[in-house]
Amino acid sequence: MRIAVFAGDGIGPEVTEQAVRVLEALGLDGLELVEGDVGGMAYRKHGHPLPPETLETARSADAILFGAVGDFSCDHLERHLRPEQAILGLRKELGLFANLRPARVFPGLEDLTTLREEVASKIDLLIVRELNGDVYFGEKGMRTLPDGRRQGWDMMSYAEDEVRRIAHSGFTAAMGRSKKLCSVDKANVLETSQLWRDVVIEVSKEYPEVELSHMYVDNAAMQLVKNPGQFDVIVTGNLFGDILSDQASMCVGSIGLLASASLAEGTYGLYEPIHGSAPDIAGKGLANPMATILSAAMLLRHSLGLEEQAVRIENAVAGALSAGVKGGDLGGAAGTREIGDAVVERL
Amino acid sequence: MRIAVFAGDGIGPEVTEQAVRVLEALGLDGLELVEGDVGGMAYRKHGHPLPPETLETARSADAILFGAVGDFSCDHLERHLRPEQAILGLRKELGLFANLRPARVFPGLEDLTTLREEVASKIDLLIVRELNGDVYFGEKGMRTLPDGRRQGWDMMSYAEDEVRRIAHSGFTAAMGRSKKLCSVDKANVLETSQLWRDVVIEVSKEYPEVELSHMYVDNAAMQLVKNPGQFDVIVTGNLFGDILSDQASMCVGSIGLLASASLAEGTYGLYEPIHGSAPDIAGKGLANPMATILSAAMLLRHSLGLEEQAVRIENAVAGALSAGVKGGDLGGAAGTREIGDAVVERL
Ligand SMILES: CC(C)[C@H](C(=O)O)[C@@H](O)C(=O)O
Ligand SMILES: CC(C)[C@H](C(=O)O)[C@@H](O)C(=O)O
Repeated sequence: MRIAVFAGDGIGPEVTEQAVRVLEALGLDGLELVEGDVGGMAYRKHGHPLPPETLETARSADAILFGAVGDFSCDHLERHLRPEQAILGLRKELGLFANLRPARVFPGLEDLTTLREEVASKIDLLIVRELNGDVYFGEKGMRTLPDGRRQGWDMMSYAEDEVRRIAHSGFTAAMGRSKKLCSVDKANVLETSQLWRDVVIEVSKEYPEVELSHMYVDNAAMQLVKNPGQFDVIVTGNLFGDILSDQASMCVGSIGLLASASLAEGTYGLYEPIHGSAPDIAGKGLANPMATILSAAMLLRHSLGLEEQAVRIENAVAGALSAGVKGGDLGGAAGTREIGDAVVERL
Repeated sequence: MRIAVFAGDGIGPEVTEQAVRVLEALGLDGLELVEGDVGGMAYRKHGHPLPPETLETARSADAILFGAVGDFSCDHLERHLRPEQAILGLRKELGLFANLRPARVFPGLEDLTTLREEVASKIDLLIVRELNGDVYFGEKGMRTLPDGRRQGWDMMSYAEDEVRRIAHSGFTAAMGRSKKLCSVDKANVLETSQLWRDVVIEVSKEYPEVELSHMYVDNAAMQLVKNPGQFDVIVTGNLFGDILSDQASMCVGSIGLLASASLAEGTYGLYEPIHGSAPDIAGKGLANPMATILSAAMLLRHSLGLEEQAVRIENAVAGALSAGVKGGDLGGAAGTREIGDAVVERL
């Protein structure tokens, strides 16, 4: 069992360090951790945010534990050299096409969200976002039109097989939850969405027990404010998923607790906290490592089949929280290492 | 002064009727109202959601008062025949490139939003959305790839002049408010957004008093949940504006009160409530016409230069609200005509 650990930029290293401590404290037989450089720090060391050796390390592993990338000092670089390309590159190169982002309000933390308690407490949803296609990975460029004007352009598209496999991810997730799936698109304007909708409907025939609905993305953004409790599993494309999953996370209030998985076919996956590199607090020992620790739990469950150990970690985090061990983002005062200690103690 | 009145589908006709009563009650000299067919009802009468005679009526007028379009019975039609094409067609044909969507919580109505009162009460923002470009109006289609797979595709693009004119709209709006402008894009992934950002920065040189910031769209969707009070004017493209303006509207809670303007260069504009055609309550006299009435006020202000009369309408609506005249959407029991009466009485 080999886990690639890519800590990245900003608070990435400190939160990842605690997650690694937690993994090591489990005393798993034959667990090997290998590090790799990604993001702005990789650019500075190797001239590229996703150096070939990192990609090789990833390929040699069973799963990736990822910290965060992002570094303002790289803002002036050409797009293909910016830190974000590390995560985009890993998704594409490793075929990580299904991003699972669960969002639910943790009991006792209802006061962290800006939504009214009676609205927030009903949130328990999963966003299944496609990660390998859409306008993210189409051809794109800057050009000068014949009349001399500059134009920026990006091709948005989905092919039926790309939609089919993420639709299966969505329906499978729905089967494991409350058998309701909402597919989000903009089929009233986009042909890409029309194809998306057609294929999702085709795939739905294989899941007769799942109740499928369709929603336009603008309406979905409204409904996530009006009544987020109406959703169970949402499946959507890369761009809409980017926006809606961040919106949904903030509805929960405690993004320092939210983990995510990006899965390939089979068991391979990349696991990361949904928060970013937070350069403003980096290196100060203030970052909350819980989301990364919970990402490690997801990794054990999905990629290594270690359900029991995953639950041990999740219970330890819940225990630390209910004992009042909270990071600054949750209104507490516990530092990064202190939170790591509290979780390790409770394993 | 000629106003084209396009009532459209669902509750469109009943809410527009009340707005027309309000306009007529002002007793404006030389005001002429001309009707036209749009949406599903136009398709049924003329075989097209935006018949040539409607477009001609629009062109002959100084402004358009628009109800709503949308009709599930048209879902099976080809895209170019669906009701939404009426509004998309008007935007494009008439060069209505700047969509202004103000969102603020009405005093006394703080309990309608799902956001906590202390968060919601600080909302007072304006979204300036580009309406003539982006992935909405690029080339698009369905094709079969050489290997036999179906693919849906849509070209996203912005040219510099398209960005420049909406940037000016954004900066001008900011100058009239608190001189803060937030431009929303996805420049870490999209070349269209990179061009957008470059041009917005160029235009900012002409508005040295305005404090310009940039935000990625996923972060903007989060910040609208976390702290919507931080925003004053947001300027963004067509697709992101569609999503964020609906999200922001719902943060206010009372979408039955929100009006919008879609402006061309000069004074020409189309004015419509932000709510849809609500087929479920259509024809029952239950719809709240206040958003349409307030759209008529915006029309008087922006297109006809009748500031005083616009304020009269707005005060009459505010008066009716504080006297407890509220539609079902606001938790009240007043019907469509009753609300119209209450506003007319108070003019
Ligand atoms: C960093 C950025 C390219 C990325 C995305 O847009 O996918 C991020 O927002 C995410 O959601 O993981
Ligand atoms: C009906 C639809 C095409 C339209 C849009 O996406 O622009 C609507 O959502 C809007 O915001 O006016």
